[in-house]
Amino acid sequence: MARAPLQPLAISLGDPAGIGPEVIAKCWDHRQEFALPPFVAIGDGRSIAAVWDGPIEVVDDPGQADAAFDYALPLIQVPAADDDVPGHPSVAGAHCSLDSLELAVGLARSGSAGAVVTGPVSKEQLYGIGFQHPGQTEFVAERCGVGPGNVVMMLAGPTLRTVPVTTHVPLHEVSRLLNTALIESRGRATLRGLQRNFGIAEPRLAISGLNPHSGEAGRLGREEIELIEPAIAALAAEGWRVTGPHPADTMFHARARANYDAALCMYHDQALIPIKAIHFEEAVNVTLGLPIVRTAPDHGTAFDIAGQDRADARPMAAAIRMAADCAVLRAENA
Amino acid sequence: MARAPLQPLAISLGDPAGIGPEVIAKCWDHRQEFALPPFVAIGDGRSIAAVWDGPIEVVDDPGQADAAFDYALPLIQVPAADDDVPGHPSVAGAHCSLDSLELAVGLARSGSAGAVVTGPVSKEQLYGIGFQHPGQTEFVAERCGVGPGNVVMMLAGPTLRTVPVTTHVPLHEVSRLLNTALIESRGRATLRGLQRNFGIAEPRLAISGLNPHSGEAGRLGREEIELIEPAIAALAAEGWRVTGPHPADTMFHARARANYDAALCMYHDQALIPIKAIHFEEAVNVTLGLPIVRTAPDHGTAFDIAGQDRADARPMAAAIRMAADCAVLRAENA
Repeated sequence: MARAPLQPLAISLGDPAGIGPEVIAKCWDHRQEFALPPFVAIGDGRSIAAVWDGPIEVVDDPGQADAAFDYALPLIQVPAADDDVPGHPSVAGAHCSLDSLELAVGLARSGSAGAVVTGPVSKEQLYGIGFQHPGQTEFVAERCGVGPGNVVMMLAGPTLRTVPVTTHVPLHEVSRLLNTALIESRGRATLRGLQRNFGIAEPRLAISGLNPHSGEAGRLGREEIELIEPAIAALAAEGWRVTGPHPADTMFHARARANYDAALCMYHDQALIPIKAIHFEEAVNVTLGLPIVRTAPDHGTAFDIAGQDRADARPMAAAIRMAADCAVLRAENA
Repeated sequence: MARAPLQPLAISLGDPAGIGPEVIAKCWDHRQEFALPPFVAIGDGRSIAAVWDGPIEVVDDPGQADAAFDYALPLIQVPAADDDVPGHPSVAGAHCSLDSLELAVGLARSGSAGAVVTGPVSKEQLYGIGFQHPGQTEFVAERCGVGPGNVVMMLAGPTLRTVPVTTHVPLHEVSRLLNTALIESRGRATLRGLQRNFGIAEPRLAISGLNPHSGEAGRLGREEIELIEPAIAALAAEGWRVTGPHPADTMFHARARANYDAALCMYHDQALIPIKAIHFEEAVNVTLGLPIVRTAPDHGTAFDIAGQDRADARPMAAAIRMAADCAVLRAENA
């Protein structure tokens, strides 16, 4: 069982027409099997009722969720301005998903909630209502007063944690967008996050190369020599335990994974291919660099299967467990 | 046990100063545990004797290996012009590794050997003696009268096979080097290879995207729309079972892998990260498009551990088993 933090977790439902309400309700159904600590759902209760016939207890704040959690899914109601229809996203639903997210973050900021877990939103829907951020991560960072450059997306599973230096950009732009300062700052944020969120006093970071065979001493690309090695040297000079640049294809087998606490990767798929190949149902998106703990399951709204009782709740359960564990570790090490 | 082909397999020792002789000798030692069919080693017997004290039976051709295989490691002697010292590559060793490779290929071409398995060579050493090919694969292709553009490198493990469209090039050049004709020809060669080498009558090929989320409908890159989708359409029009472009990060978990027989990937690490993360000790390099069967373990000479009895023989054993299985399937379907 995940260690329960002092306060229940706040879980935003995400888009009410997506699978968020379903997987959160399933998590409450299977709370013992999944070993989940008390949490409170935040969003429109009608979106849950549309896909689930279990008991819901409306509460005013997370403090009331502890007592209710045994017999009902605690919910802080954030009404949508219109009906929620599974699989059919709407403007009202997009507003509701944003309001829920904002409230969840506020509750964690104030200390009422132990951590935030965010259900999946639709970026397309959010852009339609004027949302200016690339994703929920940057919105959460802003609400916490942290610049977007200082937060880091980590994918964490039972035997592997990876962090991409560049994220949602075309592959052919990766080389141009990489620079030593960026690799250094992502590396530092990752190392600090391993200390704060995971309680690892002396974290070990393995840094990947960009090119095949890590560039083969410059014959297959020079980014390792010109950009990555200087970043590794700088981090090492600060006393961090950093290795690399490692050929990416031999970094992720079981024996190699035992040598580090996180892998810093140069681009999206370099980080996400191995974590999802190895830990597809258990990979959790953890935002490092925030004053609060925030995790999310690494899947989208899946509008195409919403309302069909087909959504897999295991990724959400993994995100809840990891949020609880990180919150306890941060409280212990505060 | 791998099904034994009609003729013993020819296994070139690779560089005599690398771990090839050791892992091949260990394969003979553990031939029953590893379920290996009869094979004959080809190279300088002194490089084996330097690291192993088991029995060696020198033979003149693979036909004599069957009888000897029960009590000794059969060897066709290709003497090096100088002593072999484990961990210390030499010009004489490089010549010997090339002569051994050439003989092994010739024996398979003539039908004396059932297939070729190649031990690891040092490209650096080979370049030093005037070798003009990027690697053993292209050399084997030339000796078989096949153009280098018509052979394909597949990495094959028990639950995943991947093929990279581009191989040993800097990452920032991948986008420029991709084109529809290349993706199509690699796809076609892979599909035919699945039929000939693996006996799959109606092979299913999953083709990856290049960019994160497969380009998100053009927002994160346009190669999917401009290059990959037309290749998929062309292959489908020929009647092949082809799907994609798939986001690379969600292609390789167990449930996804069950939907295809091979994944065609756009670049080296996209193909090699998942296969090595999942099947590190069992990933076999298979060359498709040749008139003979050729496999190789997917590791190098490892000069740094040669002669220390530390080399893992499982990758070589997997390469031998796969060569035998492919040779049997090709004979059955000829």
